[in-house]
Amino acid sequence: MAVYTDVSFEELEVFLASYDLGHAHVFKGIAEGVSNSNYYLQTSKGAYILTLYEKRVEANDLPFYLGLMEHLARDGIRCPTPVHSKDGKHTGVLNGRPAAILTFLDGVSLRRPPVELCGRAGRALAELHEAGVGFTGQHANSFGLAGWKVLAADCAGKEDSVAEGLRSLIEDELLALEARWPSSLPDGVIHADLFPDNVLFVDNEVSGIIDFYFACRDALAYDLAVTLNAWCFENDGAFNLTKGRALIAGYQSSRVLQPDERAAMPLLCRGAALRFLLTRLYDWLNPDPLALVRPKDPREFARRLRFHRTIKSADAYGL
Amino acid sequence: MAVYTDVSFEELEVFLASYDLGHAHVFKGIAEGVSNSNYYLQTSKGAYILTLYEKRVEANDLPFYLGLMEHLARDGIRCPTPVHSKDGKHTGVLNGRPAAILTFLDGVSLRRPPVELCGRAGRALAELHEAGVGFTGQHANSFGLAGWKVLAADCAGKEDSVAEGLRSLIEDELLALEARWPSSLPDGVIHADLFPDNVLFVDNEVSGIIDFYFACRDALAYDLAVTLNAWCFENDGAFNLTKGRALIAGYQSSRVLQPDERAAMPLLCRGAALRFLLTRLYDWLNPDPLALVRPKDPREFARRLRFHRTIKSADAYGL
Repeated sequence: MAVYTDVSFEELEVFLASYDLGHAHVFKGIAEGVSNSNYYLQTSKGAYILTLYEKRVEANDLPFYLGLMEHLARDGIRCPTPVHSKDGKHTGVLNGRPAAILTFLDGVSLRRPPVELCGRAGRALAELHEAGVGFTGQHANSFGLAGWKVLAADCAGKEDSVAEGLRSLIEDELLALEARWPSSLPDGVIHADLFPDNVLFVDNEVSGIIDFYFACRDALAYDLAVTLNAWCFENDGAFNLTKGRALIAGYQSSRVLQPDERAAMPLLCRGAALRFLLTRLYDWLNPDPLALVRPKDPREFARRLRFHRTIKSADAYGL
Repeated sequence: MAVYTDVSFEELEVFLASYDLGHAHVFKGIAEGVSNSNYYLQTSKGAYILTLYEKRVEANDLPFYLGLMEHLARDGIRCPTPVHSKDGKHTGVLNGRPAAILTFLDGVSLRRPPVELCGRAGRALAELHEAGVGFTGQHANSFGLAGWKVLAADCAGKEDSVAEGLRSLIEDELLALEARWPSSLPDGVIHADLFPDNVLFVDNEVSGIIDFYFACRDALAYDLAVTLNAWCFENDGAFNLTKGRALIAGYQSSRVLQPDERAAMPLLCRGAALRFLLTRLYDWLNPDPLALVRPKDPREFARRLRFHRTIKSADAYGL
C-alpha cells in the first residue's frame, strides 16, 4: 500500500514509447501492494497497472512471477497479464527500478466475504492449481519451514513483548512441525497468499486473482490451508465451519484432494497459521518507516494457530 | 497524497446505497490529495472520486468548495462535480468522516509543462475567474497577509536552520508587503493553488482543473501571480520569460487585466512566493508523521521571492 517511487507523466511517456499502447489519458498512483509502487494507467488501448519493483530480491524473481501470470492467463485464469514491449520484453527500467505494465482487472475485494464467495474462492484456487501444471518456472517457497526458522530466530527474545506466551507457542510449534511436516504431498505452483484482498469479484463472480509475488512451488494442499486461514475465521477468532465447508467444496469441485492431503490438513493449517504469525510478528517488531500501512496484528494468527492445535482430523474444517 | 481512512468494499456499498450510482466495479485508494483520503470508484454509471475529508476546518468549508465546483461546472468549467445523493445532499458521512462523491476527470498533469500548455493554463484560469462571477459563497483566503504573519510567527527562530538569511528575508518581506499590499483590486473566486499538478490535459488541451480546497475570495490578479510562480520557473530557479508571456497572453485572451492589476503584479508575485515559502517552511519544520510525501523544499520559493524583489514593472513577466 504505497507509492515509493514517484513517476512523472514525462517519465511515463518515455517509458511508454517502448510499448504499443498509445498515450496515457489517466495516470494515478494507487495505494496497493506492500512493497511495490503501483500506478493506474489508462491509454487509448485500455486500462493497465504499472508496477515498479522496489526490492532487489523480487526483481530477481520477476521472470518467475510474470511468466507464471502469463502462463495462467493463457490457461483461462483471470489474472494480471504482463504486456510485452515492442521488442518482446516483460520488464523495462523506469526511474532506476525494474518495471512492468500489466492488464488491469475490474472487480472489488471484500473485507469479510460471505459463505457463497468463500466457495467461489475455493474453486478459483483449485483452477489456479490445475492451470499451473505445465508451467516450468522454478521458485522455492521463501516462507516455508526453513524460512519460518529464520524469522523465529530474528524475533527471538522479543515475542513476549507482543503477547505473553508467544515465545513458547512458536518454539513448541516449530519443533512439532519440523518433526512431522509432510514432504511428499502433490506439489505445483501455489499462490501462497490468497487472502480476500487478492480475489476480485464482479456481481459475486470471481473477476480476478491478483498479487502473485509470493507464488512459488510447494504442496498444493498447503495453499488450501493458507486460504482456509485467510477466509474462514470471524473477527472474534472463531473458525466458521460453514465457510470452511463452502471453501473446501468449491476447491474439490475442480480438484479432489487425495487421502494423504486430507490427512495432513490439520498440520498444514498449523503451518500456514505459523507462517503469517511469524511474518506479522517480524513486521510488528521491525516496522518499516516508509510503509504506508500499520503492521497487522500478529496475535490474530496466534489465536488461529492455537485453534488448529486442537484439531485432530480434517472433518473439523468441513472436509 | 495519502489514504488516511481505510474504507472496505462493504462500507462503501452501504454508503453507495444512498446514491443512484449502481454498484462498484472498481474501488482503489489513490495517492492524491495532501490531507484527504481519495478513492477511485467505477460503477455501472461511470467513474468517480470518493473523498473523505480528514481535517475539521475543511469540513466546515465543504459547502463553499463543493458549491463552487458545482457552480463552475454549470458554467462550462471542466472540474470535479459533486454527485447528489438520493435525498439531494452533497456530502454524507463515511467511517466517521464527511465524504463526497465527485465526477472523475480523464487527463494527466505534467511535471514541467512546455510553453504551449502554460498558455492553455493561463486561459483556463481566466475562464475560471469569469465563471466564478455570480457564485455567492463566501470564504476568505486563509493564506493571505494575515495568515502569512501567523505562519511566520510559528516558524520564528527556526528559519535559518533551513537556509541562512531566511529569517531576515521573511521579516523584511512581511514588513514591505504589509505597507504596500493592494486592497482594491478586482476580486472574485480564485483557485489559489493552480500548480501544474492541478491542471489535467488530454492531447494538449485542458481536460480538467482539480483540487479546489484552497479556493477562496481574493484579488483575481493574485491568482495569476500564484500561477506565474507555479508554472514559469525552471529547475535552476530562473524565470522563463517565454512561459510567462504565454501564460499571461493566455489569461488575457479571456480576461484583460486592468491597469491597477498590471501595476501591482510585481508585488502580487512577491506575496505569492512568500505564501508558498511560508507554508513549505512550516511543513518542513513540522513534518506530519502520517504524511505520505516528503515536505517540499521551501528554499525554491525563497529564490523566487528574491527574483521578484528585483522586478520593477510587470513588463519583466511578459505583460
